[in-house]
Amino acid sequence: MSRSLLPAQDPPEARPPFVAASERRAAPELPPLAPERRVGFAVIGLGRLSLDSILPALASCKFCRLAAVMTGDKDKGRRILGQYGAPADAVYGYDEWDKLAQNDDVQAVYIVTPNGLHHEQVKQAARAAKHVLCEKPLSNTSAEALEMVRACADAGVLLMVAYRLQYEPHNRDIARLVRSGEFGSLKIIEAHNGQVQDEASQWRHQRELAGGGSLPDIGLYCLNFARFVTGEEPVEVMAWIWSTPGDPRFTEVEENVAWQMRFLSGVVGRCSSAYDAHESRNARLYFQKASVKLDPAFSYKGIRLYVNHRSAEREDVEVMEERVSEDKNQFGTEMDHMAECVLTGRKPGTPGEEGLQDQRIMEAIYRSAADNRPVLLEPIAGPDAFRDPRFSDE
Amino acid sequence: MSRSLLPAQDPPEARPPFVAASERRAAPELPPLAPERRVGFAVIGLGRLSLDSILPALASCKFCRLAAVMTGDKDKGRRILGQYGAPADAVYGYDEWDKLAQNDDVQAVYIVTPNGLHHEQVKQAARAAKHVLCEKPLSNTSAEALEMVRACADAGVLLMVAYRLQYEPHNRDIARLVRSGEFGSLKIIEAHNGQVQDEASQWRHQRELAGGGSLPDIGLYCLNFARFVTGEEPVEVMAWIWSTPGDPRFTEVEENVAWQMRFLSGVVGRCSSAYDAHESRNARLYFQKASVKLDPAFSYKGIRLYVNHRSAEREDVEVMEERVSEDKNQFGTEMDHMAECVLTGRKPGTPGEEGLQDQRIMEAIYRSAADNRPVLLEPIAGPDAFRDPRFSDE
Amino acid sequence: MSRSLLPAQDPPEARPPFVAASERRAAPELPPLAPERRVGFAVIGLGRLSLDSILPALASCKFCRLAAVMTGDKDKGRRILGQYGAPADAVYGYDEWDKLAQNDDVQAVYIVTPNGLHHEQVKQAARAAKHVLCEKPLSNTSAEALEMVRACADAGVLLMVAYRLQYEPHNRDIARLVRSGEFGSLKIIEAHNGQVQDEASQWRHQRELAGGGSLPDIGLYCLNFARFVTGEEPVEVMAWIWSTPGDPRFTEVEENVAWQMRFLSGVVGRCSSAYDAHESRNARLYFQKASVKLDPAFSYKGIRLYVNHRSAEREDVEVMEERVSEDKNQFGTEMDHMAECVLTGRKPGTPGEEGLQDQRIMEAIYRSAADNRPVLLEPIAGPDAFRDPRFSDE
Amino acid sequence: MSRSLLPAQDPPEARPPFVAASERRAAPELPPLAPERRVGFAVIGLGRLSLDSILPALASCKFCRLAAVMTGDKDKGRRILGQYGAPADAVYGYDEWDKLAQNDDVQAVYIVTPNGLHHEQVKQAARAAKHVLCEKPLSNTSAEALEMVRACADAGVLLMVAYRLQYEPHNRDIARLVRSGEFGSLKIIEAHNGQVQDEASQWRHQRELAGGGSLPDIGLYCLNFARFVTGEEPVEVMAWIWSTPGDPRFTEVEENVAWQMRFLSGVVGRCSSAYDAHESRNARLYFQKASVKLDPAFSYKGIRLYVNHRSAEREDVEVMEERVSEDKNQFGTEMDHMAECVLTGRKPGTPGEEGLQDQRIMEAIYRSAADNRPVLLEPIAGPDAFRDPRFSDE
Repeated sequence: MSRSLLPAQDPPEARPPFVAASERRAAPELPPLAPERRVGFAVIGLGRLSLDSILPALASCKFCRLAAVMTGDKDKGRRILGQYGAPADAVYGYDEWDKLAQNDDVQAVYIVTPNGLHHEQVKQAARAAKHVLCEKPLSNTSAEALEMVRACADAGVLLMVAYRLQYEPHNRDIARLVRSGEFGSLKIIEAHNGQVQDEASQWRHQRELAGGGSLPDIGLYCLNFARFVTGEEPVEVMAWIWSTPGDPRFTEVEENVAWQMRFLSGVVGRCSSAYDAHESRNARLYFQKASVKLDPAFSYKGIRLYVNHRSAEREDVEVMEERVSEDKNQFGTEMDHMAECVLTGRKPGTPGEEGLQDQRIMEAIYRSAADNRPVLLEPIAGPDAFRDPRFSDE
Repeated sequence: MSRSLLPAQDPPEARPPFVAASERRAAPELPPLAPERRVGFAVIGLGRLSLDSILPALASCKFCRLAAVMTGDKDKGRRILGQYGAPADAVYGYDEWDKLAQNDDVQAVYIVTPNGLHHEQVKQAARAAKHVLCEKPLSNTSAEALEMVRACADAGVLLMVAYRLQYEPHNRDIARLVRSGEFGSLKIIEAHNGQVQDEASQWRHQRELAGGGSLPDIGLYCLNFARFVTGEEPVEVMAWIWSTPGDPRFTEVEENVAWQMRFLSGVVGRCSSAYDAHESRNARLYFQKASVKLDPAFSYKGIRLYVNHRSAEREDVEVMEERVSEDKNQFGTEMDHMAECVLTGRKPGTPGEEGLQDQRIMEAIYRSAADNRPVLLEPIAGPDAFRDPRFSDE
Repeated sequence: MSRSLLPAQDPPEARPPFVAASERRAAPELPPLAPERRVGFAVIGLGRLSLDSILPALASCKFCRLAAVMTGDKDKGRRILGQYGAPADAVYGYDEWDKLAQNDDVQAVYIVTPNGLHHEQVKQAARAAKHVLCEKPLSNTSAEALEMVRACADAGVLLMVAYRLQYEPHNRDIARLVRSGEFGSLKIIEAHNGQVQDEASQWRHQRELAGGGSLPDIGLYCLNFARFVTGEEPVEVMAWIWSTPGDPRFTEVEENVAWQMRFLSGVVGRCSSAYDAHESRNARLYFQKASVKLDPAFSYKGIRLYVNHRSAEREDVEVMEERVSEDKNQFGTEMDHMAECVLTGRKPGTPGEEGLQDQRIMEAIYRSAADNRPVLLEPIAGPDAFRDPRFSDE
Repeated sequence: MSRSLLPAQDPPEARPPFVAASERRAAPELPPLAPERRVGFAVIGLGRLSLDSILPALASCKFCRLAAVMTGDKDKGRRILGQYGAPADAVYGYDEWDKLAQNDDVQAVYIVTPNGLHHEQVKQAARAAKHVLCEKPLSNTSAEALEMVRACADAGVLLMVAYRLQYEPHNRDIARLVRSGEFGSLKIIEAHNGQVQDEASQWRHQRELAGGGSLPDIGLYCLNFARFVTGEEPVEVMAWIWSTPGDPRFTEVEENVAWQMRFLSGVVGRCSSAYDAHESRNARLYFQKASVKLDPAFSYKGIRLYVNHRSAEREDVEVMEERVSEDKNQFGTEMDHMAECVLTGRKPGTPGEEGLQDQRIMEAIYRSAADNRPVLLEPIAGPDAFRDPRFSDE
């Protein structure tokens, strides 16, 4: 992606290709920056996602490194810093943003706390003059999201939403297929994201912390997938919500959302999110000359891309291709992208405005379900209204 | 399925199994009935579907045979009869139902004409006292469908809609999975059916003959798939229609339909049909403990069934199974089912009432799209309101 | 394949294509010949294969029909004839070849008896001046096979071995890929064919009737697959045989055979057959620029063809394609091919000489295993030494 | 695997499961050791494999870290050390083993040089009292391998061969399936490993540096896969070698090797390696009640495991499962295993003796091909003659 914008002093070594031209050849990789030149990240929140996914990924990053943590449990924080070789004293409580602001070893924060805390924390980070990578969803309301975007802009810091699919090669291939017209026009997108959590007491089941149920947590992927690959914004949504009566997990937040959205070009998205359906994440695109699917889509690992089309050579043969690109750690890719933006000043591929727009659409979805009627959205000219338009071609 | 109801004089030969118990063993097949004991069918209409699919399938049937044809081109009719070894004089014009009524060699008709002609022809067949297998959709309107159902009932002849998936083993397996509760509750169904025809002059693009566009032609499969596997009827639909401006194929009939429908149990169906999207037919069901897909679904051949679930033995392993049942000729299976119903008097698995109900729902879909609002359907208690409830368990 | 050689009076109807150029389009089919013009077949032997596969397939054939049966159980024979609408008196005992010879309604016989009987029955059929389709393996020894080939040649009747893969579209595609050089040179072939029969008393476990164990029954497919797709003949074989000590099924015939064979071009085949391994039939070809597999290969139904190669457009993407051709009834295709040869006089794609050559190679395999050393075969110049060379290009 | 042997002061955090019991749950991970407690590795050789795979993997390891490099280009060495945050002066020339011996920050070396150099370097490392992880193949001859094993034993340092599949979860699952008898006896294994390198000047094409061609480089995987999953050693091999005449890559080393090997239990392995066939790595096991494949097998990433068997519930249904385990960085897993062995003193899962045995078998394969006759191997009682027998059950 944006590797060409990085300082050029450490180019990959020039080498003749190892394998023949008929073989798959990985693109040469940039080497890592020396640790002292990498962007120092403070990880805000040491919950499951941080421990299982983000900290290990950060250890494998090339352009950033762990520099500090913020947590309610300082002992745990020190232990974690030790495990990853970061300075043991770089641990902050949730009320110590001012102290964190003084730590020059930290250029950016990665906010990995319950959704309802993002709004306040992003603003704190902006005040601390740290660049911000914020977990999705950006906030619980679009009003909050707008404040967050403005706070970062005013403070002159970058705000990136921690979306992953926009940096994942199979998803990016689909964006290219839509934009190239190679398979004619895109007609219909379908996407689903479901999983089963069984602890009613998890914060994800509490409205104040989670903002909602399956929609902002995982349905959001369907939404920003459709927006990313088309480069368009929806103009109307129609949604239904359903929660199993009596299920304690779904007293505050919704279980399932099913919605349609339409775009100016005529493309229709049919989507759903589910909170009590076996883990299944997939997306399918119906073009005039091909159908394309991700199955699984949206996963942390192992995304698979399939393209079905008629054989170019044989009129009576249908071809069903899997197109295998390299499966990289998506959290690492996302953090390295943020680091590159910090180092080069470029706008992230998924700036805060992206999260704000998703928030607006989710609010329309909730309104539609509440009123049982279609809801119009403000038309937004495209393409790529909220992204650097070069981003999807890189 | 209903083979046990057939006369028992020709049971399959008793034989020890050929392969070991760990190997796949096909169920023993009933042998064919002698031709003179098979149900004689008149095929009404000799268009592409008859020539390419129905007549060859009929030649391989065990309980029925070609006895006559009705066509606008009697020379062609005689040629076809000769090719398949049927009496050369059993050819009738579209205005010769009275003559056909006299032909005792014909016990049933299979109506394979443009949709707009079904209504009149089914009533003619009932008047001629012939049992009726009618291609889908049953008619262009629910009012017509109701008349057809009544006409057959009054004449004491069977009316079956020529749906195929209800007789296809992978689809039947899904119905069993939903009803057994093996994977917990079903939450969401998604289904899509699309293809590209490029002759604007085809009758499928003319409202009077086709009744509609992609919805009655192929979207109908999504509809009756969801109804069949759940055994439930939808209570509300919400739909959008879109046709490419200026495309001559879509001046009279619609291109794409995207709709949601909800059932009393809370299951939501998300469906679409498309007339300018590369052939793609698939369906997916999201259960609490598994996700199940047909990919392709709805095809004439080669339907594939996949089930994803966690390994029963290994907490950290996800299993993605393909479950391979025998792939039989679906047209042959459908005609042999009709023949068995004629021979035994049992009600078909997809009686005329099924087609009527699909017609009612399609009308609600069109209304919803026209008014851009959800449309309620009359609640119908289940399960299997319009089918023999034993049918899906056989 | 050879459809162009058939009498042209019944061409397929000329019709505009139904679907767009980007969609899969089946090749137009020849219509069936009127039954009285079809080749009349006597089926010799009414065991499992005849009842379950061959007779139903024959009922769906376009260029041949059932005209008589030969069986040890005349009542059963009459019942079968009745079921399929053939003349009830056309039933013959195994000693009534002279009577069969008089039946002019029979132009060809299909021998479907235990392997050990083929030799005598093919010679009888030749004496009766009937064309012969003989189940595989052609015989128990190459000496017998040679006699059979000569007897048919002397009698002026066609002899075809009932191989199926040479007429199956996915297998034929592979032959084309090898010959076209599209993926560079072929280097290695691997093939395996295994299944589990658990009745020690089956004739397949008796040397006199079966001629051998897994090799002539199912390993033979690997052998003639490799020969067909390359068009070459092996020059050397090396084999090992293994049977589970004490298993009553393997006292007379072998359980497993593993062998290598090499061809003049340098291609090596690595093959195995197994008689106590879960049904698995597959083949793989390693080319310079692609690997190709059939999985399953050799089955009666549902053969799947996969091609892996680097993306033509993307240096870092590997493409794994399934290429889906129509899945036709292989027994029907094979019998219709024989019928076309009878009607047109052309040589079958798998003439008796093919079966003779396979027999020679199997004898070398047995010798190699017995002596535990490689065994040379007489070099045979190619390509397609025993086939009409045009056959694989049709 | 052996995680329980590690010092217990940093257990994974106890947490309630996040997802329901019907969902895939990853096993809790041990947290990383603090960098100063990790095993310091010196990477010997900075070629393509080190730069592209081993150094990035080492950065993500939990129990080891980069402590030094040995290289012919000290500037490059210093640059690499800087990129990975290791001490810039820990760079050694190939003649500076004595200096390296003095570096107490280095407990182990990972030898990643051309095969022909391993013998001398392993002995040097042993003299330097460093534990040794050595790239495969261990050496060019079994005599050398034996010296290496003895040198390390005498010096009291561990010697591990850098095999990966023994630590990869899908491969380990297969070992368990074979040993558990769940699918009955294993009968036949087939395995192939091929790729295309097109630079005739690469060291892999030079006998002195590479020791051989496709066999020791990639055929070796087939060999140690078969040995690992069965826990048995072959008693006889039979092999053929073929190289394209005139191809400059294959003047010193062989192109293709095809071989069979048999084990005492009767299992036969059919294998091949290829140096001019499109990248394809796969393995298949034929059991009595299932067939199991890895496709791809042996890759650095994305190994897929499939199991075919009859449905447990449905006599007429064949099930084809993909069993998805987590896809971890194999180089990282391998290095962390070595680190755990160093920290705990346990024997590696793939000790030097494993490499020695593979070397002996490869020599028998070459001898067989040279003499065109089967070659016996010294029978070795099992199971797991050269491994800790507990290893495959962990």
